[in-house]
Amino acid sequence: MRWSQLFTKTRREVSSSEAAANARLLIQAGYIHKEMAGVYAYLPLGKRVLDKIANIVRQEMNGIGGLEVQMTVLQPKELWQKTGRWDDNKIDNWFKTRLKNGSELGVGLTHEEPIVDAVGEYLKSYKDLPLLIYQIQNKFRNELRAKSGLLRGREFVMKDMYSFAASPRQHDEIYQTVLEAYGRVYARLGIGEITFRTFADGGIFTDKFSDEFQTISPVGEDTILVDRSKKVAVNQEIMRSPGLAKLGLNTDSMENARGVEVGNTFHLETKYTDALGVNFTDAEGKQQPVYMGCYGIGISRLMGLLAEHFADDKGLSWPDGVAPFKVHLLSLGQDKKIIEAADGLYDLFNSKQVEVFYDDRPARPGEKLADSELLGIPHRLVVGHRFLQDGRFEYAARRDLSKAGLLTEEQIFATIL
Amino acid sequence: MRWSQLFTKTRREVSSSEAAANARLLIQAGYIHKEMAGVYAYLPLGKRVLDKIANIVRQEMNGIGGLEVQMTVLQPKELWQKTGRWDDNKIDNWFKTRLKNGSELGVGLTHEEPIVDAVGEYLKSYKDLPLLIYQIQNKFRNELRAKSGLLRGREFVMKDMYSFAASPRQHDEIYQTVLEAYGRVYARLGIGEITFRTFADGGIFTDKFSDEFQTISPVGEDTILVDRSKKVAVNQEIMRSPGLAKLGLNTDSMENARGVEVGNTFHLETKYTDALGVNFTDAEGKQQPVYMGCYGIGISRLMGLLAEHFADDKGLSWPDGVAPFKVHLLSLGQDKKIIEAADGLYDLFNSKQVEVFYDDRPARPGEKLADSELLGIPHRLVVGHRFLQDGRFEYAARRDLSKAGLLTEEQIFATIL
Repeated sequence: MRWSQLFTKTRREVSSSEAAANARLLIQAGYIHKEMAGVYAYLPLGKRVLDKIANIVRQEMNGIGGLEVQMTVLQPKELWQKTGRWDDNKIDNWFKTRLKNGSELGVGLTHEEPIVDAVGEYLKSYKDLPLLIYQIQNKFRNELRAKSGLLRGREFVMKDMYSFAASPRQHDEIYQTVLEAYGRVYARLGIGEITFRTFADGGIFTDKFSDEFQTISPVGEDTILVDRSKKVAVNQEIMRSPGLAKLGLNTDSMENARGVEVGNTFHLETKYTDALGVNFTDAEGKQQPVYMGCYGIGISRLMGLLAEHFADDKGLSWPDGVAPFKVHLLSLGQDKKIIEAADGLYDLFNSKQVEVFYDDRPARPGEKLADSELLGIPHRLVVGHRFLQDGRFEYAARRDLSKAGLLTEEQIFATIL
Repeated sequence: MRWSQLFTKTRREVSSSEAAANARLLIQAGYIHKEMAGVYAYLPLGKRVLDKIANIVRQEMNGIGGLEVQMTVLQPKELWQKTGRWDDNKIDNWFKTRLKNGSELGVGLTHEEPIVDAVGEYLKSYKDLPLLIYQIQNKFRNELRAKSGLLRGREFVMKDMYSFAASPRQHDEIYQTVLEAYGRVYARLGIGEITFRTFADGGIFTDKFSDEFQTISPVGEDTILVDRSKKVAVNQEIMRSPGLAKLGLNTDSMENARGVEVGNTFHLETKYTDALGVNFTDAEGKQQPVYMGCYGIGISRLMGLLAEHFADDKGLSWPDGVAPFKVHLLSLGQDKKIIEAADGLYDLFNSKQVEVFYDDRPARPGEKLADSELLGIPHRLVVGHRFLQDGRFEYAARRDLSKAGLLTEEQIFATIL
């Protein structure tokens, strides 16, 4: 894409009503637009990043047999009354609306009830199990305050997955498979080393621990205790419980850290399937309960985390796998030879299907270089005065701008690809 | 995908509360789940069809320079008050909700106001124009009645695009480009021959006609008059107006038809940009108004139309471009040689990246054949008794099951691909 074809521009100032660094950076670079507190629209560059994160998650969920569906935002009240989750005194962050006839509807908060209801129409026999179903979709939470940008939205994009199993043992097997897939997701996003499986309170349904994945970050809202050698952590809530001893962990060898929750996995036992009357027939013809798990990854939250975590004082710095483009190509100067060479490289990248963002604006060199740092595309290639001298291009990785080098056209593809 | 890995099943009966043939067929075949009247969830097969339609539309919009964004479902009241479209007496099918602090919010009905507001932050000069911005997203309309399945939903998936131009002339050029792209979309969906550019009332903003694309179908809600030789039609509303003469069309040579609106394009003139204070600086430094167009294609409506239009008395029959899979492979019988051959073909299709749905269930041949007709995947390949006789496979196109033939493994790929 040529910048001249894009409508967004960078900006110096962001409204002081935006407190979160992740949102401020993304607004400055033209990735997102703030619709209201906790509600952001994704502009072309931001939409590309969001889709890349979603596709990494999708590939890993498909890889373990996840089936993708798309549930609805509008939700019938009756379904949620069956599990006792309609009442605002039970769940206090619903958005609700009404049909013309006055019937109340919920606005997609989470999807356990509708998924169980839909799956229940098909689930008959033990042969149908286990099942793993997911969607990637907007969720809505009526948060009293929303100050963390993409880290805690009122409207946000989430991958939510639900497993259905014929026994606790079958459930445990799926659960383990999902944990492993989550690990692969974070590794591909470039945060594998700083993201820890974190034991958390299993809640009221189960005496098992639930799990969170926490990425160590100064902007984290959670306090965790990390055992780097064992690659696990525990959430603060567990530290205060007798659970820690049960896990065989020793606080003496663990370090305190701030964490951002980038995923969670729960054992739901039979709470929802029992409440909605979904069970199955076993090999002996007996009706049996269905054991569920649920598994979330916040797609837009990850975008906010990655933006903020990898940023430096010059701007964003995306990991390769989620950057809106792989290469940022800049022409510096209006010399005809420079523009021809840059146009040629742009066409060459496109013909090789390398995702390239081409700053072809007739702007000052300093402005174009600063913008490239703000946008944070991983590989920067400059066509400038060096090209006029000896036909070489200036290359630098966004993560290490100090180590710029000079490349001939032949060397470019060997270096960047 | 193997059917044994899919949770959906076909069914004989659909609740009598579902009146529309498109939804009945899609529910019977396990493509969708009815959440409530006018609100459907997409199950794995349905999600695949929906995504294929969306991707065809996306490719064509990108092809004419469309920039993809994702606006929000939650909408601030203040923005809609500026254009006079918040009041329920003006627009009667809003879903609305409230923040915890009591502020009213709209639930994404359409996006002219938020798009203009967002673009207005960047649009400064005539050099920034023209612009073409689109999204593919759920929309919400509080319809009093919802009886047409996917053809008229309360929650539905739509591609909505907005153009911004520096002059009426520049607007007309974009508008024409979009009309041509729309024609390519319908051709790729297999309804090019029966879909007509249809003149309609331009509304209050403009003395130009707006355009609809109408697909001739007995289930259409609209009455249109078609001139097949000129490849255009007019909507009933124009037939009654002096507009018909202005178009140089003669009703004598036109035929009456029922049409389903599968797209629409409007001239918005400067209504929204003026109301929201968005203008641009021309080459002489003067402030000038911005001319807008908007362009819709109902993605889920198209899914309903294609389902219903191409169905026969045996079930669905998808066009190649949108079918959930290209090939439906069936093993008939439990003979070990049959299963091995079918497994081998399944692996071969996957290795060649041919999308194949493999009915590997140990079900009766009659049931599997009937299900393949109901599901409507375009190419059916049966491994059955003929394979045991002479090693050949039975091939039939879903559209012409009477012309079944026998193929060797070598012939399969030449025939199907």
